[in-house]
Amino acid sequence: MNEIKLFSPATVANVSCGFDVLGFCLEAVGDEMIIRKTINKGIKITKIEGYDLPFDVTKNVAGVSAMALYEAANPECGFEIEIYKNIKPGSGVGSSSASAAGSVYGMNVLLGNPYSALELTAFAMKGEAIASQSEHADNIAPALFGGFTLVKSLEPLEILQLPTPDDLFAVVIHPQIEVKTADARKILPENISLKNAITQWSNVGSLIHGLHTNDYELISRSLTDVVVEPFRSQLIPGFERIKETALKNGALGTGISGSGPSVFSLCKSRLTAIKVESAIRQAYTTQNIAFEVYVSKINMEGIRKLN
Amino acid sequence: MNEIKLFSPATVANVSCGFDVLGFCLEAVGDEMIIRKTINKGIKITKIEGYDLPFDVTKNVAGVSAMALYEAANPECGFEIEIYKNIKPGSGVGSSSASAAGSVYGMNVLLGNPYSALELTAFAMKGEAIASQSEHADNIAPALFGGFTLVKSLEPLEILQLPTPDDLFAVVIHPQIEVKTADARKILPENISLKNAITQWSNVGSLIHGLHTNDYELISRSLTDVVVEPFRSQLIPGFERIKETALKNGALGTGISGSGPSVFSLCKSRLTAIKVESAIRQAYTTQNIAFEVYVSKINMEGIRKLN
Repeated sequence: MNEIKLFSPATVANVSCGFDVLGFCLEAVGDEMIIRKTINKGIKITKIEGYDLPFDVTKNVAGVSAMALYEAANPECGFEIEIYKNIKPGSGVGSSSASAAGSVYGMNVLLGNPYSALELTAFAMKGEAIASQSEHADNIAPALFGGFTLVKSLEPLEILQLPTPDDLFAVVIHPQIEVKTADARKILPENISLKNAITQWSNVGSLIHGLHTNDYELISRSLTDVVVEPFRSQLIPGFERIKETALKNGALGTGISGSGPSVFSLCKSRLTAIKVESAIRQAYTTQNIAFEVYVSKINMEGIRKLN
Repeated sequence: MNEIKLFSPATVANVSCGFDVLGFCLEAVGDEMIIRKTINKGIKITKIEGYDLPFDVTKNVAGVSAMALYEAANPECGFEIEIYKNIKPGSGVGSSSASAAGSVYGMNVLLGNPYSALELTAFAMKGEAIASQSEHADNIAPALFGGFTLVKSLEPLEILQLPTPDDLFAVVIHPQIEVKTADARKILPENISLKNAITQWSNVGSLIHGLHTNDYELISRSLTDVVVEPFRSQLIPGFERIKETALKNGALGTGISGSGPSVFSLCKSRLTAIKVESAIRQAYTTQNIAFEVYVSKINMEGIRKLN
């Protein structure tokens, strides 16, 4: 195989209580990429559609991650990358991670899968770093592993695949404003109260127990964030209205997706998700900000081959 | 039935990463109590053996919790309580919780079990409060529910029963010095770094995932505490030596039990636990502090009837 076309999905990081460590993978939105082996050595980005992003491999997240893998593998060939971007950069659903993970996933397949998903995560983090000024895996891990993931630690890098209840659906609203990850990090305090930290780790524990036991009510009670949301929600116009609307219409929980401005809700059943989507659409129309809202099942596979 | 004799076990709270929320129940050490229905109304503590504790029901944790249940149930009878104390107060393995939970457990059985384990936890917390100056459930929950427990929240009170891998054993060393819970709380900072908090909730999540998946290696990697141990370990002479010895001899993890001075290790298999116990015994002898050390399986049942 000399060419692979793939779907690289959007992802939701943090998941309310699990700042910096939890994430899950979406199905409804994602980039498409084509990775092609070339006789000439090196990495080239030959096409970018959808959004205006740099072709320079040292400045493009997909290029930087590709170079990290390329230097490690040192293959006899080179690679061309085409990026058909559907995930808007800065939307809070892992746009840079989709690109960074997609390029290394595709190259790995074309090289005969020498690297594990964990190793691909490490390469992709190099790309992610140029978007967020620090290495993170909370979007990359769900993109590469699928389902719900927990970043157990960065050094050494360890990713846990968590179970996903069958009937879980996400609703994501993306208000068309940009919140930069770096800015969203600056707004956070360096220290938090021990009391709030205890609440947060109790909820992380409970959420993971709820995922293991298919306890939707417990998942619902665990989807709270007393640490980050009070700060970052200020950057998202109408956040409280979205949250109230979603919860009133049966969502299990609602929180900021990554660093925002996208806001996710988790719902039990597609029917509830559709109801929540429709209610959010109606409620947010009065906000006078352009937005998109969609329902997605949880993507259990992560990045996948299309051809 | 007019009388019940019961075993009320020692418990380990916090379990390294889960400060204030995680706990597990021991088998090897516990108090015995006899609860007896009386024609005369009211609660009386008629016997205390083992340690010098107040007979005044308003000053004894078993009395205070008993009164909380008694006032709620308002039965036609009264109760006598005999306490045969084996768990030294202030040892860090839930001595007050064993008493507070034991009295209400016994009364509940004699009244025909009108209350759930969760309701008993709430009563017992009233007793626990006079020992630690605030209401906690992290020792009471494992005493009443058995196994590993997570205190999801205090208001409303919610306790989760976590799975316990079959081959898990605890080694507990109790240096014979007293660390008061209230003092051990004072030493803690009000605020912690967000960075450490993230490490902690990642470990709580990983530990619970490890308990669900019988992944002893993951349990081992999750048993770290970057928040509380750096402060409280200073109150325990030889803590680092205990920890190093245990880990070197195969323990999965070692941490402070509750507010100390007891130190617990978790081990895979009884054989490893015995090896760890013996190594700790040898290492701690040079410390010139009297101590006890014992191996315990995880008590899956919690408090139980003896007659």
